[in-house]
Amino acid sequence: MSLALGLRCVNCEKEYPLKILYNCPNCGGILDVFYDKLRGKAGNEKRLIVDESIQGLWTYREYLPVLNKENICSLIEGKTPLIRSKIDFDSFIAEELFFKDETRNPSGSFKDRPTTVAISKAIENGIQGVITASSGNAGTATAAYAAVASLPSIILVPEKVPKEKLMQMFVYGSKIIKVKGDYSNSFNLAKEIAVKCDYANLTSTYYNPYGLEGDKTIAYELFDQLKGLVPKYILVPIGTGPLLTGIYKGYKELKKLGFINKLPRMIGVQAMGCAPIVKAYNEKRNKVEPWDLVDTIASGISDPLKGYSQDGTYTLKTIKNSNGCAISVSDEEILKSVLVLGKQQGLYVEPTSASVIIAYEKLRKMNIIRERDLTVSIITGIGFKDTKPLMDSLNSIPLIEPTFDKFKEIEMLWG
Amino acid sequence: MSLALGLRCVNCEKEYPLKILYNCPNCGGILDVFYDKLRGKAGNEKRLIVDESIQGLWTYREYLPVLNKENICSLIEGKTPLIRSKIDFDSFIAEELFFKDETRNPSGSFKDRPTTVAISKAIENGIQGVITASSGNAGTATAAYAAVASLPSIILVPEKVPKEKLMQMFVYGSKIIKVKGDYSNSFNLAKEIAVKCDYANLTSTYYNPYGLEGDKTIAYELFDQLKGLVPKYILVPIGTGPLLTGIYKGYKELKKLGFINKLPRMIGVQAMGCAPIVKAYNEKRNKVEPWDLVDTIASGISDPLKGYSQDGTYTLKTIKNSNGCAISVSDEEILKSVLVLGKQQGLYVEPTSASVIIAYEKLRKMNIIRERDLTVSIITGIGFKDTKPLMDSLNSIPLIEPTFDKFKEIEMLWG
Repeated sequence: MSLALGLRCVNCEKEYPLKILYNCPNCGGILDVFYDKLRGKAGNEKRLIVDESIQGLWTYREYLPVLNKENICSLIEGKTPLIRSKIDFDSFIAEELFFKDETRNPSGSFKDRPTTVAISKAIENGIQGVITASSGNAGTATAAYAAVASLPSIILVPEKVPKEKLMQMFVYGSKIIKVKGDYSNSFNLAKEIAVKCDYANLTSTYYNPYGLEGDKTIAYELFDQLKGLVPKYILVPIGTGPLLTGIYKGYKELKKLGFINKLPRMIGVQAMGCAPIVKAYNEKRNKVEPWDLVDTIASGISDPLKGYSQDGTYTLKTIKNSNGCAISVSDEEILKSVLVLGKQQGLYVEPTSASVIIAYEKLRKMNIIRERDLTVSIITGIGFKDTKPLMDSLNSIPLIEPTFDKFKEIEMLWG
Repeated sequence: MSLALGLRCVNCEKEYPLKILYNCPNCGGILDVFYDKLRGKAGNEKRLIVDESIQGLWTYREYLPVLNKENICSLIEGKTPLIRSKIDFDSFIAEELFFKDETRNPSGSFKDRPTTVAISKAIENGIQGVITASSGNAGTATAAYAAVASLPSIILVPEKVPKEKLMQMFVYGSKIIKVKGDYSNSFNLAKEIAVKCDYANLTSTYYNPYGLEGDKTIAYELFDQLKGLVPKYILVPIGTGPLLTGIYKGYKELKKLGFINKLPRMIGVQAMGCAPIVKAYNEKRNKVEPWDLVDTIASGISDPLKGYSQDGTYTLKTIKNSNGCAISVSDEEILKSVLVLGKQQGLYVEPTSASVIIAYEKLRKMNIIRERDLTVSIITGIGFKDTKPLMDSLNSIPLIEPTFDKFKEIEMLWG
């Protein structure tokens, strides 16, 4: 049984029922789901209540905002592996670094978490179709869940979205439209279309308040996987940042439940070519300003926040409340990290996801993260999603006649 | 503790220790792992013995050929979802059809199963490097596991391998060589290189006898997921066919254990443009002949068996022993089925995997599979792996200015 009670504005604290609502009708603030007094399993055991009749993250449905089990639209998402780092960072190793491997979700990214919750809640509220503005992964997730729910879906994507993600949306049967300009144009147009056409807007910024509830289940899973230990740091690639805030919310709930007595420090990672939250953090401002010119290969976090910079401000607030920090990395460093994760860890990730590796390395070198600090990096999306930045590398693969002599010629070149 | 005892030739029945061996040194036949008397959990409960300290398919290590747990090289593979069909096949529905979703494996295909077992056994035998000839998925799996094992790897691929798979191998750090001609050229050259350079050959035909042991774990998982019910039919896309034979072996073991009293009928699915096993089946021959000219988009099963047609004969024998059948489907039907799986099921699969859907539909129409027959189709690989056949479809996606009016213009075109 879900313990969700309603939506509450994080700004004016006005409360609303669990309906299709986006920003606060009173003050325009971000809405957040609130719950009845949370409870764990009876007895001394520090365990969340789980519904074993469902697979994936919905086992935690007690703590999620869908009231009727029949409205759950699932592709069996979540419950992703936590993998210990094997990476040799030249000057040090990182035995206390773990990767939460979100590439193993049904559509290949963490966005399946917010999407399964947001679409299930939309179904519970009787909607007839869904729309999403997406730089890629939220769009493919929306397309997948709309397909299995037999709901029409419209996906608005920025002009430069990787074609791998477009293909995935196409196969799931969504109606796709490319919108000129950066992600913010898609975001603002989706808002207008959703209102005028009465579609549920699943856009996974903070705009739809239910998505973040899916993100928070990562905290629950980490609690189980780390046997109750709380990471000192959690590194998250951030565009708008609900994933970071969602994970932190999950930990705050675990603390309220009395299961843990401290909270992780949240570290937001952005690409230097689009880093509005890092900029505000570095300049010690409390308010995030929109980013002007987006220039990065990390398509999953290239969000300039134009028209909704309050969302970035909210993420910055979470980071500061957690005593964390924000850091940016270059495209060159990101590409190098894609290969490090592939070659040393057997993880095939998209550029956006690799940003956390180089951020970890930098923070270790700055002595902010120390050798013994339990740290989790969120690996957000699979490598197939965005191959263009490395595609030229394939030109170096040799083509030979099928003879051993020709092989030996190539082998000699390897040295 | 593993119950594996040795290798036995399926032809002359000569036995060998669990070393790096490929075809039988006595007669050239296929080698198969054999076990001590299998046992299940104590008591009346029909349950396999599981090692809860390991995740994924290695929980079944009692029934796998790796003796020392420390040699296991895993990326947490297997334990994939079983999903009930929601597909509306025009003239009928298919409530008793299930999909075993192998796209959820770490490198995106079922090949992670044979590869984790074969590489772990190679490590146990002290090898220094691995080589694979692959039409793609086995190569990406080898590359991933070699990376995490810190072993050098060489992957030989046919000229026409999809670039998505090449990119994945590249990121995992393998040495890749394209070999002119079809898959058989790569296969035969890999054999020669492995012997001359003392690399373990992980090629996942029947050549490496340990791979099939990974495939058989699908039967164990289905036994658990279907609560002991045995499917009447299991549909498998087949190139050489060890996946089909492996699953059947798993079921034969479950029968020996007394857990089940019947076996599934195995259905092999090939593409019309490369269907040597189907041809032999249709012509009522017991021996498979190599295929001459490969012409299909289903790259994962485009194996002409030149130089190792005995492997196809062995698969045909399994099919006949199981009272199953072999069937071929056209490229056009396959592409249509990719979209059916995407739009109706939310499953994004590569063309090879979609072949089982159209095969199911045909067999239903022929009244071979009936409405109430419990049937499992193996979904072998994720859609990202091979996007070229559908890439032109993306040209139809509109690009608009970010205004509601422009959206309405597009919406009108949708009708």
